[in-house]
Amino acid sequence: MSLLAVGTVAFDQIETPFGKRDRALGGSATYLTLAARFMADDINLVAVVGNDFPEEFVEVLRSRHINLDGLERRSDQKTFAWGGRYHYDLNNRDTLFTDLNVLSEFNPTLPAHYTNSRIVCLGNLDPSVQASVMDQADNPDLVLCDTMNFWIENTPDALRSLLGRIDCLVINDSEAREMADDPNLIVAARKIRAMGPKILIIKKGEHGALMFAGETVFSVPAYPLEDIQDPTGAGDAFMGGFAGYLSGCSEINLDALKHALVYGSVVASFTVEKFGPEGLYELSRPQIMQRIDAFRDLTTIPLDAIPNV
Amino acid sequence: MSLLAVGTVAFDQIETPFGKRDRALGGSATYLTLAARFMADDINLVAVVGNDFPEEFVEVLRSRHINLDGLERRSDQKTFAWGGRYHYDLNNRDTLFTDLNVLSEFNPTLPAHYTNSRIVCLGNLDPSVQASVMDQADNPDLVLCDTMNFWIENTPDALRSLLGRIDCLVINDSEAREMADDPNLIVAARKIRAMGPKILIIKKGEHGALMFAGETVFSVPAYPLEDIQDPTGAGDAFMGGFAGYLSGCSEINLDALKHALVYGSVVASFTVEKFGPEGLYELSRPQIMQRIDAFRDLTTIPLDAIPNV
Repeated sequence: MSLLAVGTVAFDQIETPFGKRDRALGGSATYLTLAARFMADDINLVAVVGNDFPEEFVEVLRSRHINLDGLERRSDQKTFAWGGRYHYDLNNRDTLFTDLNVLSEFNPTLPAHYTNSRIVCLGNLDPSVQASVMDQADNPDLVLCDTMNFWIENTPDALRSLLGRIDCLVINDSEAREMADDPNLIVAARKIRAMGPKILIIKKGEHGALMFAGETVFSVPAYPLEDIQDPTGAGDAFMGGFAGYLSGCSEINLDALKHALVYGSVVASFTVEKFGPEGLYELSRPQIMQRIDAFRDLTTIPLDAIPNV
Repeated sequence: MSLLAVGTVAFDQIETPFGKRDRALGGSATYLTLAARFMADDINLVAVVGNDFPEEFVEVLRSRHINLDGLERRSDQKTFAWGGRYHYDLNNRDTLFTDLNVLSEFNPTLPAHYTNSRIVCLGNLDPSVQASVMDQADNPDLVLCDTMNFWIENTPDALRSLLGRIDCLVINDSEAREMADDPNLIVAARKIRAMGPKILIIKKGEHGALMFAGETVFSVPAYPLEDIQDPTGAGDAFMGGFAGYLSGCSEINLDALKHALVYGSVVASFTVEKFGPEGLYELSRPQIMQRIDAFRDLTTIPLDAIPNV
């Protein structure tokens, strides 16, 4: 199945206790598409960059068979740039700067051959931009959406109306608690799904993720890693891996959703082992499959019955 | 297999957003034994209470077939009392008071028929008291130990020497990070196991628990609950359920340890649904078995292979 991913393509300045990168390739659309490519056969990227965006970064995506017809180039502006510094525990970070540049006027028009993409991934953007992409999509099978505290706080109405139109919301635990105004994640999930999304995925960083679908709650831990270099993009890589896996399935049922959650977790775990998206550059399917087996060992309750003494 | 649990039997004052209890039955030994009783056939409690401890609380334990020959009564002192107030999110609490009373001179002598207990649970106490109980135990099959930040910070040497003698350490994630002085739980686990315990269990509250045994890492989520009344004693109930399950096994192998981790999580989940230990009073094995099945649904990755497209 074809997959469309709209989001940012950016310059990232990243500082972690383990190193530093300046003007590295970043952005949600970058991570979404690089993570989705392992299962999706037709990946359509939608984003905008400026006149300072280097051809070598374009080549990173093109050489990995990501369709860039939807990558708008603005000759009159600079590329969106973000800088962040992670705390020693990697669970918190300070934003050093956010230069919107081209993003301030981003109003994407989908290339004609994008409009029939079967799976649409709305990366974290202004809800009105996410909605305009949905307006141009021709009845996709599944629409996934990410958002962040900024939009929850500043554009609640636009976000609310968008939630009524999507199938799957992918947010982190602090965003879920804030959106539902409830500290209990299970209660928060019920309240958020009542706003529209049939499927809700709550990302919990080092604690893994929870998926709510129908009457089902499904939990996956994070893959246990001793050496985490940079958490940047892990959430987008998770969403991209999740959506990419589903795009490789003949049918999107509960088993497929569970497999996709594991798949997304695995791809995210490779992402954080290197800086920026570097962990996704050379990643291979056999490496992914091997770590999926490790996930089974990590979570499978032995099948022999627990004795009811 | 017989199980010995040493810890506190206390008066708890509990305040949560959902209610309040004054002079309720509490203490680690209370939760450990009440949680262990569902699988253990012979539960030996070791603790001390004062002249103000009511017979009705003694009866709560005795009526549930917990051996109280090791419950010392001090006629000259008051019972240990603790008071705590939980924040709105239940993940943090403020200690309102800690009246050690009888606990300040607690130096337990095991009844003769306790000394051959096969599983020994050392509830959170001064490491020197935990060590003295180990000294009196006759070569148990498994020794489990809990501790807390206070002992990590104030009696590091006594705790270190104890860690060299036990089989399984059960602590929460903040204690693990502090003990190992490392923010990464996987690194922390390696460092802590190098201090002695072959098995390490890290409790993560609403995020479940991690078990490290041999080369295995095993993860269980917390049971998804919308209605949590009081987290008090959840960690002790978890440890009691874990140890109690193992005491019902003919052999303590990796599968048994995994089952025990699920069993402890289930018993803990029933504990937090009511105030104090009330959730453990009427709990039945069928209820536990039913929730164990729910845990399988919550964590089992569907067995059909993930297509390697």
